[in-house]
Amino acid sequence: MNNQIYIHNTLKGEKELFKPIHEGQIGMYVCGPTVYSDVHLGNCRTFISFDMIYRYLIHAGYKVRYVRNITDAGHLEASLAGKNRLDQLEPMEIVQKYTVGFHDIMALFNNHPPSIEPAATGHIIEQIEIVKSILDKGLAYESNGSVYFDVEKFDKTENYGELSGRKIEDLISGTRDLDGQDEKRSPLDFALWKKASPSHIMRWPSPWGEGFPGWHLECTAMSTKYLGDNFDIHGGGMDLKFPHHECEVAQGKASTGKAPVNYWLHANMLTLNGQKMSKSTGNTILPGELFSGDNDIMDKAYHPMVVRFFMMQAHYRSILDFSSAALSASEKGFNKLMTAISDLDKLQAGESSSANIKEIVGGFYSAMNDDFNTPVLVARMFEAATEINKIKAGSASISKTDLDLLNKELKAFAFDVLGLKPVKSGGGNELDAAMDIVLELRKNAREQKDWTTSDLIRDKLSEAGIVVKDSAEGTNWSIN
Amino acid sequence: MNNQIYIHNTLKGEKELFKPIHEGQIGMYVCGPTVYSDVHLGNCRTFISFDMIYRYLIHAGYKVRYVRNITDAGHLEASLAGKNRLDQLEPMEIVQKYTVGFHDIMALFNNHPPSIEPAATGHIIEQIEIVKSILDKGLAYESNGSVYFDVEKFDKTENYGELSGRKIEDLISGTRDLDGQDEKRSPLDFALWKKASPSHIMRWPSPWGEGFPGWHLECTAMSTKYLGDNFDIHGGGMDLKFPHHECEVAQGKASTGKAPVNYWLHANMLTLNGQKMSKSTGNTILPGELFSGDNDIMDKAYHPMVVRFFMMQAHYRSILDFSSAALSASEKGFNKLMTAISDLDKLQAGESSSANIKEIVGGFYSAMNDDFNTPVLVARMFEAATEINKIKAGSASISKTDLDLLNKELKAFAFDVLGLKPVKSGGGNELDAAMDIVLELRKNAREQKDWTTSDLIRDKLSEAGIVVKDSAEGTNWSIN
Repeated sequence: MNNQIYIHNTLKGEKELFKPIHEGQIGMYVCGPTVYSDVHLGNCRTFISFDMIYRYLIHAGYKVRYVRNITDAGHLEASLAGKNRLDQLEPMEIVQKYTVGFHDIMALFNNHPPSIEPAATGHIIEQIEIVKSILDKGLAYESNGSVYFDVEKFDKTENYGELSGRKIEDLISGTRDLDGQDEKRSPLDFALWKKASPSHIMRWPSPWGEGFPGWHLECTAMSTKYLGDNFDIHGGGMDLKFPHHECEVAQGKASTGKAPVNYWLHANMLTLNGQKMSKSTGNTILPGELFSGDNDIMDKAYHPMVVRFFMMQAHYRSILDFSSAALSASEKGFNKLMTAISDLDKLQAGESSSANIKEIVGGFYSAMNDDFNTPVLVARMFEAATEINKIKAGSASISKTDLDLLNKELKAFAFDVLGLKPVKSGGGNELDAAMDIVLELRKNAREQKDWTTSDLIRDKLSEAGIVVKDSAEGTNWSIN
Repeated sequence: MNNQIYIHNTLKGEKELFKPIHEGQIGMYVCGPTVYSDVHLGNCRTFISFDMIYRYLIHAGYKVRYVRNITDAGHLEASLAGKNRLDQLEPMEIVQKYTVGFHDIMALFNNHPPSIEPAATGHIIEQIEIVKSILDKGLAYESNGSVYFDVEKFDKTENYGELSGRKIEDLISGTRDLDGQDEKRSPLDFALWKKASPSHIMRWPSPWGEGFPGWHLECTAMSTKYLGDNFDIHGGGMDLKFPHHECEVAQGKASTGKAPVNYWLHANMLTLNGQKMSKSTGNTILPGELFSGDNDIMDKAYHPMVVRFFMMQAHYRSILDFSSAALSASEKGFNKLMTAISDLDKLQAGESSSANIKEIVGGFYSAMNDDFNTPVLVARMFEAATEINKIKAGSASISKTDLDLLNKELKAFAFDVLGLKPVKSGGGNELDAAMDIVLELRKNAREQKDWTTSDLIRDKLSEAGIVVKDSAEGTNWSIN
């Protein structure tokens, strides 16, 4: 905990020294996926960014409780006219499909699971309790079976717009002319509880009749339940800053009188070949398509670890553009870094070091302490890789103490902090190719009665547990 | 749907022809894991058994909605004395850890995720609603903030013990002398809702004060919510038959007036070296320890697919004993079957078939239609494997039509129904070994100025994307 970590806080619009509420402990909440469709690459970037932040906070010595929710209580509407329960569309079946898919993609990206992954539908009672408490404070009102947050009344004593920097006058003038707002006192008011129409499948009993929670309420309920009324860090994608996070601030203050969050962090978007991703224009790619190469946009398949490394080469608050050229360059960089790390174990220590290893390693920390500046960290790691290559080639030297330090810290930052993993050989194709060569050489050796070579091959394969069978149809091999 | 499937129904104590409630559709519920510790091998067997049943029902043409719950609302008690929210033990953190671990193990066993995987804490409102309805029917009573099911009153018009075959008189005489039952009218009565003591962490508001649902209620709530008040199949481990499933029958009938389930299926236990598994005697092994070989009980590591195949060689209603000898035998059988299946694609069709392939394939179906008799199915598949070996050796023949049939059905039963997967080469060790041989032969060839061999190796490696680098320190290779 000697690290002084500076974090860009959206609430202040600037970097500030991070001070946890409780010494050595951090509570962090990140808005998770809506599991009604495949997870987007943009969402993946957000979750990878916060995974990196979570990892660095742990590396810096904090005990972190990281909560990331699953938004499963969506606004899916459908006919309930099926002839029996099994015939009807079941939202939770859709939720399950995309939750499983989401977890699979997160695992491919080597994201740690969060400490708690609560689902919105698992916290309906908690949400109802918050609605009650805001009603009790007079900052919400019931209207036709729904409950709305009274933004203008809240703004009289608090500042609605505090997080996003918006002014309530501008918001009002921008929305006054909307239609169909008759249930609300003001178009700015947002739903805490919505009455369920007959076609709304997901519905629960409440003091206001059957309905479902408003969009913004679940995160207030789940973050405060597991982290307390006032906690350290709240993260999410930039697009959630307004209105979602602004409404969370308002809900938290209205229900408990406390600002819910000390540090608000927002991860930026990504673009594809310089354009916004969009299904309608076809300028879009799913993570799975990126990994398999099954797409018309990239030149080839990219391994999830290469994609992760690529993301780490940009700052989480910068827009990141995906392109074949950029990914190819990252792939080379990734391989260079992984090779240097695997070479570390083979280096011989000398009398002294030709480079200032402590300074290089110190640079890892100062990059990350500066609002998790991973591109600078990666640049420092490349400096280390270059030095490793020089030492390997004999044109530089390293002392035993420095080698131990570099070995420990370079691996820690690559694997623990950036969350990278060395890429293992692909699905056995290389083994097939290597075995083709081995068997061809074995055939040649036998034809030339070169029993030395032929015996060598037999013994080595046997040691490796590879069994070769000759038959009339040819030669086969298998793993024992 | 030409299959007439006979299922052993615990409710009847015998096999009977399966008839779905709705033509072509099946609703199936299986009691899932309690996620407060690592999943046991015995639980895995239950979930693998029902995965196989789920797979066969789909293969037989049914549309199946398979619901398997997560029991996360346990009875964990602990001090709430932490100095802040982050300091306190958080049950959902434990739940998350073991849920992730459970999913990982299920994936290694190649179990399909269920269609819906609801969590008990996600259905507190539904459970409260059922308690209300049973209270309304006069079959439960409130006592000191808890609500109990009135077993003796229920038994006056219904039959408590119907599923497990127990008699209420015997149950009463066996329990009369228990202490601390003063809240209950009868020791047989079971809790629908429990008042939370001050040290109980997981608690929710209810009409009876703060508390949590009784053990048996969650499955009634989640099964009927997603499958209807009366559904087709309910499965679980044999140990859950009484009291858990018996209480589910009672709760369902009391709240809706309907028998909740038409077919009750129970999977049997497993033993280890002939003894009950037990932590206290050390006669226990976790799935992960079985796969890694990191245990003192088995002779070596066993692949999850070998373990799955081993389980399939016993009927789901029989006790299964784990031992090195039995697993080794299964490993040989598994490899034999996988080799035969991979040979299928290489077979040449002839004029006619020497064996009755239609009968062999018909045997696959009749085995599974007989209460999912996987050991008989596996025996039939071995017959097919033997025939494949004969055809390959030229001592038997197969017609084109039969080859197509066998190819389709053997693969379907191995992969789709039994849920097996060919085992790919392990973590690259074999590739390392094969490359050692290639590089050694390359070195020899160069030393002997055998440029033909040396060029052959270079070209083939290059084709496979394997890059070899020579340097002063020796030769390295990597995958491009």
